[in-house]
Amino acid sequence: MPDPSGTDRFFDVGLLDPLGQGSRAAELTGDSAWLQAMVDTELALTRALVDAGLAPGWMGAVCDDLADAGRLDLAAIAAEGQGGGNPVIPLVKHLAAAAESLRTGASDHLHVGATSQDILDTAAMLVAHRVTGEISARLGEYAATLAALADTHRGTAMAGRTLGQHASPTSFGFVVAGWLDMALTAIETIDRLRDRLPVQLGGAVGNLAVLHQIAALRGAGDPAHTVDLVLQRFAAGLGLSAPSIAWHTNRLPIVDLAAGLAAATGTVGAFALDVTVLARTEIAEVGERLGQGQGGSSAMPHKRNPVTAVLITAAARQTPGLVATLFGSLLAEDQRPSGAWHAEWPALRGLERLTVAAVAGGAALAGRLDVDPERMLANLEITDGLVCSERVTTLLAEALGKTAAFALVQRASAETFRTNRPLRVVLSGLLSADGHDEQLRAGVWAAFDLDPAQGGPGIDRVLDRFRGATHDPNPDAFPSTEAVRTSAP
Amino acid sequence: MPDPSGTDRFFDVGLLDPLGQGSRAAELTGDSAWLQAMVDTELALTRALVDAGLAPGWMGAVCDDLADAGRLDLAAIAAEGQGGGNPVIPLVKHLAAAAESLRTGASDHLHVGATSQDILDTAAMLVAHRVTGEISARLGEYAATLAALADTHRGTAMAGRTLGQHASPTSFGFVVAGWLDMALTAIETIDRLRDRLPVQLGGAVGNLAVLHQIAALRGAGDPAHTVDLVLQRFAAGLGLSAPSIAWHTNRLPIVDLAAGLAAATGTVGAFALDVTVLARTEIAEVGERLGQGQGGSSAMPHKRNPVTAVLITAAARQTPGLVATLFGSLLAEDQRPSGAWHAEWPALRGLERLTVAAVAGGAALAGRLDVDPERMLANLEITDGLVCSERVTTLLAEALGKTAAFALVQRASAETFRTNRPLRVVLSGLLSADGHDEQLRAGVWAAFDLDPAQGGPGIDRVLDRFRGATHDPNPDAFPSTEAVRTSAP
Amino acid sequence: MPDPSGTDRFFDVGLLDPLGQGSRAAELTGDSAWLQAMVDTELALTRALVDAGLAPGWMGAVCDDLADAGRLDLAAIAAEGQGGGNPVIPLVKHLAAAAESLRTGASDHLHVGATSQDILDTAAMLVAHRVTGEISARLGEYAATLAALADTHRGTAMAGRTLGQHASPTSFGFVVAGWLDMALTAIETIDRLRDRLPVQLGGAVGNLAVLHQIAALRGAGDPAHTVDLVLQRFAAGLGLSAPSIAWHTNRLPIVDLAAGLAAATGTVGAFALDVTVLARTEIAEVGERLGQGQGGSSAMPHKRNPVTAVLITAAARQTPGLVATLFGSLLAEDQRPSGAWHAEWPALRGLERLTVAAVAGGAALAGRLDVDPERMLANLEITDGLVCSERVTTLLAEALGKTAAFALVQRASAETFRTNRPLRVVLSGLLSADGHDEQLRAGVWAAFDLDPAQGGPGIDRVLDRFRGATHDPNPDAFPSTEAVRTSAP
Amino acid sequence: MPDPSGTDRFFDVGLLDPLGQGSRAAELTGDSAWLQAMVDTELALTRALVDAGLAPGWMGAVCDDLADAGRLDLAAIAAEGQGGGNPVIPLVKHLAAAAESLRTGASDHLHVGATSQDILDTAAMLVAHRVTGEISARLGEYAATLAALADTHRGTAMAGRTLGQHASPTSFGFVVAGWLDMALTAIETIDRLRDRLPVQLGGAVGNLAVLHQIAALRGAGDPAHTVDLVLQRFAAGLGLSAPSIAWHTNRLPIVDLAAGLAAATGTVGAFALDVTVLARTEIAEVGERLGQGQGGSSAMPHKRNPVTAVLITAAARQTPGLVATLFGSLLAEDQRPSGAWHAEWPALRGLERLTVAAVAGGAALAGRLDVDPERMLANLEITDGLVCSERVTTLLAEALGKTAAFALVQRASAETFRTNRPLRVVLSGLLSADGHDEQLRAGVWAAFDLDPAQGGPGIDRVLDRFRGATHDPNPDAFPSTEAVRTSAP
Repeated sequence: MPDPSGTDRFFDVGLLDPLGQGSRAAELTGDSAWLQAMVDTELALTRALVDAGLAPGWMGAVCDDLADAGRLDLAAIAAEGQGGGNPVIPLVKHLAAAAESLRTGASDHLHVGATSQDILDTAAMLVAHRVTGEISARLGEYAATLAALADTHRGTAMAGRTLGQHASPTSFGFVVAGWLDMALTAIETIDRLRDRLPVQLGGAVGNLAVLHQIAALRGAGDPAHTVDLVLQRFAAGLGLSAPSIAWHTNRLPIVDLAAGLAAATGTVGAFALDVTVLARTEIAEVGERLGQGQGGSSAMPHKRNPVTAVLITAAARQTPGLVATLFGSLLAEDQRPSGAWHAEWPALRGLERLTVAAVAGGAALAGRLDVDPERMLANLEITDGLVCSERVTTLLAEALGKTAAFALVQRASAETFRTNRPLRVVLSGLLSADGHDEQLRAGVWAAFDLDPAQGGPGIDRVLDRFRGATHDPNPDAFPSTEAVRTSAP
Repeated sequence: MPDPSGTDRFFDVGLLDPLGQGSRAAELTGDSAWLQAMVDTELALTRALVDAGLAPGWMGAVCDDLADAGRLDLAAIAAEGQGGGNPVIPLVKHLAAAAESLRTGASDHLHVGATSQDILDTAAMLVAHRVTGEISARLGEYAATLAALADTHRGTAMAGRTLGQHASPTSFGFVVAGWLDMALTAIETIDRLRDRLPVQLGGAVGNLAVLHQIAALRGAGDPAHTVDLVLQRFAAGLGLSAPSIAWHTNRLPIVDLAAGLAAATGTVGAFALDVTVLARTEIAEVGERLGQGQGGSSAMPHKRNPVTAVLITAAARQTPGLVATLFGSLLAEDQRPSGAWHAEWPALRGLERLTVAAVAGGAALAGRLDVDPERMLANLEITDGLVCSERVTTLLAEALGKTAAFALVQRASAETFRTNRPLRVVLSGLLSADGHDEQLRAGVWAAFDLDPAQGGPGIDRVLDRFRGATHDPNPDAFPSTEAVRTSAP
Repeated sequence: MPDPSGTDRFFDVGLLDPLGQGSRAAELTGDSAWLQAMVDTELALTRALVDAGLAPGWMGAVCDDLADAGRLDLAAIAAEGQGGGNPVIPLVKHLAAAAESLRTGASDHLHVGATSQDILDTAAMLVAHRVTGEISARLGEYAATLAALADTHRGTAMAGRTLGQHASPTSFGFVVAGWLDMALTAIETIDRLRDRLPVQLGGAVGNLAVLHQIAALRGAGDPAHTVDLVLQRFAAGLGLSAPSIAWHTNRLPIVDLAAGLAAATGTVGAFALDVTVLARTEIAEVGERLGQGQGGSSAMPHKRNPVTAVLITAAARQTPGLVATLFGSLLAEDQRPSGAWHAEWPALRGLERLTVAAVAGGAALAGRLDVDPERMLANLEITDGLVCSERVTTLLAEALGKTAAFALVQRASAETFRTNRPLRVVLSGLLSADGHDEQLRAGVWAAFDLDPAQGGPGIDRVLDRFRGATHDPNPDAFPSTEAVRTSAP
Repeated sequence: MPDPSGTDRFFDVGLLDPLGQGSRAAELTGDSAWLQAMVDTELALTRALVDAGLAPGWMGAVCDDLADAGRLDLAAIAAEGQGGGNPVIPLVKHLAAAAESLRTGASDHLHVGATSQDILDTAAMLVAHRVTGEISARLGEYAATLAALADTHRGTAMAGRTLGQHASPTSFGFVVAGWLDMALTAIETIDRLRDRLPVQLGGAVGNLAVLHQIAALRGAGDPAHTVDLVLQRFAAGLGLSAPSIAWHTNRLPIVDLAAGLAAATGTVGAFALDVTVLARTEIAEVGERLGQGQGGSSAMPHKRNPVTAVLITAAARQTPGLVATLFGSLLAEDQRPSGAWHAEWPALRGLERLTVAAVAGGAALAGRLDVDPERMLANLEITDGLVCSERVTTLLAEALGKTAAFALVQRASAETFRTNRPLRVVLSGLLSADGHDEQLRAGVWAAFDLDPAQGGPGIDRVLDRFRGATHDPNPDAFPSTEAVRTSAP
């Protein structure tokens, strides 16, 4: 627990982030995680120098001993970051001191040829790599749960709603298939991003001048080749990709990542929003199964709030503004900019934190859905058949033409709306009055019987897509495969 | 220091927030500050009940003993917030347990008639009250420093720049007066907001039904009057105002606050951005005086970066996205919404934190400006007189008409641009060739002499405004008066 | 109709803006309106010069003849704006040509001492003045309609809803009072902004150097005094206020305006969102009364969509992003910036257009609400009494203490939820089993009877506020007074 | 020209959009373009029905006759869009009337099985397909120009700048390679998006129920197969892809597009921002070559503003807010939502319009860059050698160790900063005083000689990437190939 008398009392522990509690969001994106990623980055650079013959072999063991960022004084590094405007400058000092305590001269081989932004950007990509792995895994679980639900409920009739009004019948399975299709796209996006996260290495002005200089001074062979080797080993050591050229002021990797994260949050957000609607007291078709201590109120003992759904929705409302901040930083001038870069850090971390918590919440919520098919059927009845107007119009159009059929059903619908007499009854009467034959009237009457199977082909296409994605033989291309397989029904 | 083996390692300590280090930003907006504000709110409600005769008098002493939120288990409350979706529900439990340990039955008089949102919204306003007080004070210091600079440099000639190009001469004092005028408006806005921050009190659905019921059961006299007394005492006890009606889904107080905070950050941000421009190596008219360990680089030993200016600029780039999130939450449905409210917390806290740090940075930066009048004068020379084209055109227009004068100077300017011959020389030659008399040529020649005094009336108007603001006899209306008086030159 | 073969076919006529159709949004904010405001600005400046003795008296008549911007070639001015990056440069040329055709030498007295930004910023404020007048009037009508509704429905019981779930009873009148209170605040904000909209006048670098120079050359008396007179007359002629100093890079007037506009849109947006919820097929407590051709669908003849409510909601979703753009432009460097200013125009116009259309829509929607008190009562019944849990807990707390009462009702609620047995029956049984006396049981039983009057004091406070605002004797401070009086019930 | 007396005067003709003038932005995104895309969509659906045997063959000729949207009354359709909340409903009526005038009964085969959103979403993708084609072509031209510049200026030494301060030497060619690398990524993104733009077809609630019903009534064979054929032909007819399932409330296609557009605008925006910096009067290393009537001022005859660069920057400042709006619409509830969808239209169109204009401007600006290598060299001199501190430190580190070298150069830099004595001189003196040998001093002295070639490998990697992209044999995958080949140096 934080020390209430010290500076710790100003730390954030998640009081305003109920969704993040218990998810890996804080662990993967907290200050400790960032510091560890910065240390990982510095050491990967040094190891790449060793590999390229630009640093002595014994630095490998020094790197091993320096690997745990937990031994560094995080709070001091944070505090000292103000002087230079970023935490890398003090980190290098602390790390150098630790290295010297291990072996004199070791600090000469740390942070060689790098600028602060090289370290922080690469660390950001490393954090992103870990975060997107988690997101992909949670989305995979979410997708697997939805796939089972879509299949189970392919015949569960339900009112389709547009602009808040009953429109035409659909099935709950079809609605779930829509959520699933979105999830599969989001997984593809996250996995594509994850495979392309680049290291940053350019030195002060991006041209790797210092590494070239050192390669010429110390290296054997073509300096350009040696530098390229450093870059490749640096990237490989971190599991990231090597870019063509430094991207200090080319922030497309950042905005791509931001867009993908917000897309993932929005994917579970759209689902959660639907849950809040379908769980409304008057609708009650779907509910969030609540555990002990969940969904309560401080004032009302009966309250059973769909609290996870609400918190996911809240997360999805916060991402667009953060995305905007990051797109704003595309306007980065010079070789490294005066503010655009610095503005990225909290927004990117915020997006990552929200997304990890949201997809974990989404997977949990999908697994705790109470579905009430009887209530769905009951709700379908409340419009006295109006919900079938499109279907019956289509049938009538075959006999009367489209325009006349539309006008007839519109007239009948208005009467049903006014009188609450069932639309099939009203229509039957109108058709009879107009002298239409019994066969047409019987067909119209039958058209009010529900046929929830009609969305089946769409469900099947999405389930095929799900199976294709989850049976991908390449585990790197789809890292959530294990999770999906394990938890699939 | 956080325990590296425990959950503390996931806490944020400011690693990605170099500007906030050493400012009161974290202290005023950290989780501890929010928890304290929630406790203050709960106890103010209980005290108001006592005042209105709806709770026993001995609860006053209980409230005194419960007042320090530092005794509560912040981390546990944060963790337990997930169940109900907000931290108030666990807070009430922890506070009730503490109260019962002081006196049996005491918990019956806590959180009476309130809903979670009443407590969290009021706490948010309390945090905002403290934050805006700090902001106003720092902006007051900033303004006082600028007032002195504007006066000192009213005669310091400088190139006015538009679209990045030299335009016409101005004075540094006039430029400073522009910054100051903006600061005075920002102070007015913050102070106006601060005076109107409302408490929230409505109960579950905003209509204060439980308090009415209790007033009818326990109170003497008209229940409506008693409830109104509770509301008034609750507001007065916290130094906030009492609204006409609950604003659970009327979020105008939040967006007003957000807009004011972002305006304050943008005010110092515009100044800081100008500093980064004027400090450019090639311009070098203004610099940030750097202390030990400031402005350095991890790669380049000569670097003297205007680091505070850069970090303030970065802060101002982050606020618009957060403002957008809060405006988005105006779309809040029902009596309390499913996500819009929850989405506000991190954005509002983020805005407050950025603004406190930015205005503290702005005040510090203004006090550490190195101004180089000689360089300003030297830069004015580099366009061979083109910077005076507007002035000389105005003079020529009296003799030649506006259109002809503009065309003549445009032609002469093109020649100067091509040949680097001084514009006054080129123009003199053209006028002579066109047969104009000596008097006109002499006047034109003299028009190239700088007259930085011409912005004086504008400077004076702004300084008058500054003095009017700072000598306001009402300390409540302008809380930063002390700070300004003390530090004014 | 646009010429399908010419460039006109690329113009926007509102195809993607259904809400704006028929409102004054396009008229007040279209290109013609902006051009007229720019012409008004140029001529007001010339007239101010005449008043100050810096231009000949006959220019007054020239200004009269130039006053109609409809005679200028709008399309040509737009096209020529690319060269200098803004439409003022070609406008000045076209206006000068028109002036010369009226009287030789007249063009010498146009655009004197001004820079493009002076004209465009002032024109923007003039457009804003007209737009905010319209907004205030429409919000006034909206408020008047709500005031009548709040009073009429003060006794109309309705389920209060939080997080989408029934919470506690309220009245529809109380809900309406909440919307009204928000509207009154929005009107105050818009009117305050409207009274403070400043002209812009500074010349190339803001210091009014050219006007000072001309005043010294042509004027009698103190040049500073003469320039000040020009500024005051310029402002007065346009009905705007005179600022202390140019605000070319102090964009607080713009962000204040933006925040106020978005607040107004959000105000009607929150109302419209509630209408879309309450109009849901399963809730159906409130509907949008639809005229011929409204609310239909291209596919479903029965559809009665709350289309105005939906479009207002859509408008309110668009404003936060535009607000963010404008706050971003606070970061404006130099004496006039390289892009920040240019980025403001479409965002500001977009905000104004959305807001005019939204408040007009809001006023119309409020006047076309179908309210169904019987349905409200019926919906209150569907939770078997759970909606009264807070009320009954409060009563029980008097006898059992707060904690025990909460636990008891929570237990009873769970049983009601499981069995659908009415909560009052379940509770009565539990109390009996626990040996509580008949009086308590009778009180609990009675506590389930609705008492919608309990929100009355809040309604009255808001209605008092409404009456105070609308009976304000100063028509300037509250321009919508006429509209409100006329349409008030 | 618009009719000044009619409703046309409220239309927008681009007065506030100087960058868009003359670009294809308005043509591709104007109301006429949207209406045409909607008509294209309706007719493609009908043709797909014919292909699938669900509509008579003679409808093909009717579709041919209906193909020109220019014959429809755009203004009337726009005005009538208010009733249903979107322009499709009146479009269907107008189109049906036109069809009936061609052949009785023809209207029965229009808009069959579709809902308004199917038509508008597909039309939006069609507009996007055309827009992204234009963007890719313009970015291709832009890239080709940059490729030539990068190669030409690989040896043009220039000061690398970070945080606005001279940092280390680089070459202009290397800076250009950075812009080019970003452009190549942006092209990849746009082309990837373009290849995946989906049609929308689901009917009222997304499940294609009406088409299934019609296929069962009219079709031969398996209805599911027939419906799938309609979907495939519909997509193929428009050059778009067929989705697994309707995406009425899965808005990932929209946000992907939005992110890609903003990335493209930001790509040229970052370049343009650099131009505005490098064109500053004091820097003057790069300028925008201005034509007649470009870059002028209404007040200052000498002004040569980098106006295209400024307007591109302004465009890039507007995109983040629009992106935020579109990400906000991911929160779309039900089968079609109450506002989220409607909010997308202006934001998406705005993004497209800004991006087309920005990339066209970027291509033009790149082709009109004046580069001044002499000025670059001169600017490199102004820090008395400080700009070489990193290089010399690296060299000294070989002899002294990294820490000692850094400290020595830092001390020397401070002296140079204070005294303006060249750093090489100061350092040489210090080394001499410390007793270092002549060889080291000579090496240090030589290290101040510029070696702009050091960024060469990075330039080559980017040029290779450029060549790889532009020689792609698949024209569909890289539609800008022609343009690039034509204009490549």
